[in-house]
Amino acid sequence: MNLYIAFVNIFLYIIVSCDASGTDIALDAKATLLHRIDSLNLLIYTCLLTLTVLTIWVFKHRRVSWLHETGLAVIYGLIVGAIIRYGSSTNEITYIDAHPDPDSKYNLSVPPDMVRFHFPDKIQVTGDASIPNKTYAYSFRGEIVNVEQNEIDLKATFDPEIFFNIILPPIIFHAGYCLKRKYFFRNLGAILTFAMVGTALSALVIGSLMYGFVQLMPASLASSFTFLDTLYFGALISPTDPLTVLAIFSQLKVDVNLYAMIFGESVLNDAVALVLSGAIQNYEKRYSTDGEFEITAFLAAIGDFIGIFSLSLIVGALMGCLTALMTKFTHVRDWPLLESALFVLMSYAAFLIAEVCELTGVVAVLFCGICQAHYTYNNLSADSRNRTKQLFELLNFLAENFIFTYIGVSMFTFPKHHFDPWFIIAGFLTSTLGRAVNIYPLSFLLNLGRKPPIPMNFQHMLFFSGLRGAMSFALAIRNTVSEARQAMLTTTSLIVIATVVLQGGAATHALAYLRIPTGYELSQGQNEESDALPFRDVRNDSQRGSGDSGSEKARLAKLWGAIDSRLLKPLLTHARPPLTETLPAFFRPLARLLTTTRQYTQGDNNGLRRTDSDSDLCIDEPQPVPTSIDPQQLWPGLVDTRISVEGITGSNI
Amino acid sequence: MNLYIAFVNIFLYIIVSCDASGTDIALDAKATLLHRIDSLNLLIYTCLLTLTVLTIWVFKHRRVSWLHETGLAVIYGLIVGAIIRYGSSTNEITYIDAHPDPDSKYNLSVPPDMVRFHFPDKIQVTGDASIPNKTYAYSFRGEIVNVEQNEIDLKATFDPEIFFNIILPPIIFHAGYCLKRKYFFRNLGAILTFAMVGTALSALVIGSLMYGFVQLMPASLASSFTFLDTLYFGALISPTDPLTVLAIFSQLKVDVNLYAMIFGESVLNDAVALVLSGAIQNYEKRYSTDGEFEITAFLAAIGDFIGIFSLSLIVGALMGCLTALMTKFTHVRDWPLLESALFVLMSYAAFLIAEVCELTGVVAVLFCGICQAHYTYNNLSADSRNRTKQLFELLNFLAENFIFTYIGVSMFTFPKHHFDPWFIIAGFLTSTLGRAVNIYPLSFLLNLGRKPPIPMNFQHMLFFSGLRGAMSFALAIRNTVSEARQAMLTTTSLIVIATVVLQGGAATHALAYLRIPTGYELSQGQNEESDALPFRDVRNDSQRGSGDSGSEKARLAKLWGAIDSRLLKPLLTHARPPLTETLPAFFRPLARLLTTTRQYTQGDNNGLRRTDSDSDLCIDEPQPVPTSIDPQQLWPGLVDTRISVEGITGSNI
Repeated sequence: MNLYIAFVNIFLYIIVSCDASGTDIALDAKATLLHRIDSLNLLIYTCLLTLTVLTIWVFKHRRVSWLHETGLAVIYGLIVGAIIRYGSSTNEITYIDAHPDPDSKYNLSVPPDMVRFHFPDKIQVTGDASIPNKTYAYSFRGEIVNVEQNEIDLKATFDPEIFFNIILPPIIFHAGYCLKRKYFFRNLGAILTFAMVGTALSALVIGSLMYGFVQLMPASLASSFTFLDTLYFGALISPTDPLTVLAIFSQLKVDVNLYAMIFGESVLNDAVALVLSGAIQNYEKRYSTDGEFEITAFLAAIGDFIGIFSLSLIVGALMGCLTALMTKFTHVRDWPLLESALFVLMSYAAFLIAEVCELTGVVAVLFCGICQAHYTYNNLSADSRNRTKQLFELLNFLAENFIFTYIGVSMFTFPKHHFDPWFIIAGFLTSTLGRAVNIYPLSFLLNLGRKPPIPMNFQHMLFFSGLRGAMSFALAIRNTVSEARQAMLTTTSLIVIATVVLQGGAATHALAYLRIPTGYELSQGQNEESDALPFRDVRNDSQRGSGDSGSEKARLAKLWGAIDSRLLKPLLTHARPPLTETLPAFFRPLARLLTTTRQYTQGDNNGLRRTDSDSDLCIDEPQPVPTSIDPQQLWPGLVDTRISVEGITGSNI
Repeated sequence: MNLYIAFVNIFLYIIVSCDASGTDIALDAKATLLHRIDSLNLLIYTCLLTLTVLTIWVFKHRRVSWLHETGLAVIYGLIVGAIIRYGSSTNEITYIDAHPDPDSKYNLSVPPDMVRFHFPDKIQVTGDASIPNKTYAYSFRGEIVNVEQNEIDLKATFDPEIFFNIILPPIIFHAGYCLKRKYFFRNLGAILTFAMVGTALSALVIGSLMYGFVQLMPASLASSFTFLDTLYFGALISPTDPLTVLAIFSQLKVDVNLYAMIFGESVLNDAVALVLSGAIQNYEKRYSTDGEFEITAFLAAIGDFIGIFSLSLIVGALMGCLTALMTKFTHVRDWPLLESALFVLMSYAAFLIAEVCELTGVVAVLFCGICQAHYTYNNLSADSRNRTKQLFELLNFLAENFIFTYIGVSMFTFPKHHFDPWFIIAGFLTSTLGRAVNIYPLSFLLNLGRKPPIPMNFQHMLFFSGLRGAMSFALAIRNTVSEARQAMLTTTSLIVIATVVLQGGAATHALAYLRIPTGYELSQGQNEESDALPFRDVRNDSQRGSGDSGSEKARLAKLWGAIDSRLLKPLLTHARPPLTETLPAFFRPLARLLTTTRQYTQGDNNGLRRTDSDSDLCIDEPQPVPTSIDPQQLWPGLVDTRISVEGITGSNI
């Protein structure tokens, strides 16, 4: 990283020494310098990611389990961030104070987009500033709140909006695209409860507790936080991102229902938290004066939340279905490249349409991903299936590791951190408590109506999987204007780093300690070798009604399964039975139009089974060596051999 | 597109009506509006690309050959650009004139990075502008040359730098990655001559002729162009982009040597033109006063050109070789996702390192792509081969179509066009002449030393394939400060559009008219079914010396083949013979270190043949229906059946 210093110094020198050759060349040199600093920043992250990839390989090769790739990315980020912070010289931004022309014709109260700045060649020499030599354009950046503290130093940092527009969409789309929908729908009740009610509850509890904590602190701090601020903190710290835990689950072949609950919840609560924080900000905008509750504004915020969430969902789902129709009724599958391009463009369009309509693009892209996997995937050619799967897997991998690296680096380089020990301690305590409030009471309520209840050790594991990640960080870094928001960013970064590194590292031990069954080969095998093994999908379940293990499924899933298998799947894919069989006689002519010859001609179930996306879409990393960590080895004495037997029986609920 | 107008109007209205609720909310609304306009712009391009993809499918389905996908993208772009231009209201940027504070401590002659602008709440009301109410930050954009003409209207346009940093790299990398290296090296002499000497010659001829033309025009125009300006125009209009022609070649299975010459030349002349134009600009910067030649500066420019080109080449090649070493000596191939990520990151790092070192990233990425294909590809796991191939194929497809769509749209929406009929006519004439000067004299010279000479009809086809494309446009739009540069942009856009649509559409007819042999199944088959057919690679050729058809190969290729097969391939891949056999005894211990067990154990040639990248990397779009256009059908009477026989014999040189 000494390169960094060297470059900056050399080029600052060049800028200064170019003085004699005229302003234009100095400006060119400055633009070049800026471009090179940008490239250097990107290069730093590229090298960090390369290093992470190589270390992950070494760890996998040597079967190290106490540190996951995301933890690794964070740690590398921290190290490089510290080097950049303390090892390199600062590259201060030059600024000048300016006033509007007295005879300006501008008469709006909003500041203009651009300032035409009449800059004298040499201020000190001419003395008379009223004769401009050159005019430069300056574009609007934002308000300066604290005029003194303006040494903006943007080393190795990016505009926070790139997270929402570039980094998060592929991560969230991939989560939707590779969701194990069979188990997701089977546990839909629990997942929705945890994600919707749980996240809102957690946000409220964390927000209230934090407000209480803040009131106990010195007056200067207490006054800078409103209740809405702490509520916003509650909303942003509530979504979980149990990447590390899930990677270990998939490695140790943990019970798929537990996996589905944790994964499904984390996918949905990202979306919920994003919309929730938006609603809180809208509320704040409407009544920004005192932070007191007003009942109409509160209701409007709830309306906002529900409206934006459901409209985004609809936009995403519609775009997914539209892609399914396009791929069903055209022969674009003969040209896989065109088909893949269409798939990517339509999915991206879902994001953009939602953003243009002032909805939440990330939520739209999530549900678009789910629909693409559930319907479109079945229509795609083998080449496109493979290509889209691998493309988004790679994008997801790079984006995830980038964001965790960035969390580490920005801890040192982002200029707007505010370390407040009390707020940080309070943040850690309340976020733990918020997770507990999310899991235990709701599990208790769910168990009242759920046939095979969620066992206590599963609840503990759900609580333990409450790692914080990308979404929390992205929301925290989005707005750092006030000191309160800066304290929130610092606290969020620290919580993310601590949970990812420590909790992520301890996940294997937690599994053993909580006696969660591992090595659950059967269901895992179903996914991996679906072509060979008999495969039971949602549709068959719903037709069999309450079959052998149908009783534990949520009612919602049953209803949905019926609509899905009798209307949507035949309409949007080549699946059997065709619409001509499932729709009432009245719709027969329409149904005939919407049924392809392939649907008539193929066998009843074989075609569907072979091509159903859920079976081969779930992406588990290939494991060249079957790993099996012996709990005995990790916790000698604590665990006896009974566990694995007990576990498999216990999980077979 | 009426949506566009509606949105802009509605939100301008909201901004104005928000006046009462305070400046902060107005600013928020404005930021939201800008974000939505950005999203809308992206959405327009996404929809255009989707439309292009669907139309391409229809065209392929109906076997339309008179319009290629890039032509289609341009035409759709033109239509939508016209609608945006004439159909929507303008969204003018507000601006204000400003002066520096008299007591400012700023004392550099370079304009500051940022202006702290003290903005009074109501200029008209208070009257006294010296009492600031709020301070806003404005960041530097550039110099305003013409103060009057400042209604900057950035509808559906992007920063030109995105072409060099985002759009071109994947296109160029893909070109390098899927280069048919066997035929490339076989025609290396001709390709290098056309690309290096030819492009420079063409730039010089076009530049001089244009300067002459400009001198004949009205004085006002003549004075605005220096010789360096027209030379820059020559450099930017010289690179060819025969996408359309090559697509038709691959469809009609035209002689592979002709294909290799046209493709290889277009890949290299992009790089040459980019570095050449950079050298001209550097020259301009150094002696920007009068545009006269100075011998030292001219030599410095040539030094610049050679230095930057070869250093960029070295950076790219080294990064490619480093990736090969990493994939050879680690077992990262056991985890294909990690391997693919490493591959992508290293390739991107090549681009960034070159940019940081003030070299040309695009050139680095081209040679990195060639090395990755030639060495790294052989070490990759099957999954990674497939993934990287498909990933870059998709990126290339999207980037190419985006750039051609953008060329169409920007024709109407980019604010800095300058239509000058004389300059446009001169541009068309000289660019055609420049292509002729590139091909015919150089072919004559080449034929003096080349055993099987380049036949006349091949020369005509080389001339005809001089379509202009992405690189010319990107170079032209990069700098539009002066009127001269704006006239160049307009002329370049028109040349690109005309050549892509008209020449591209006429390519099939030109092939028939020039009696170029088509349906050249043998060599095409070699590439597609390499596993089944005996495959003769560079290495075998070089060992056999001047074998059956070895005499036509350039000497350069022979030397290179020896180094490649005896040193580089065994060092960087698992290919046989191992270094222990090829290196002198002195290096034996080192050679043993660098040889993997796989190299010792595998059979002599089978392994290499099966895995050599050239055989399966060349990406031809899958053709579900074998197409064969009968020349008779296109040019009845002109072409007799003798052609196909003659053709196949003629091409079998």
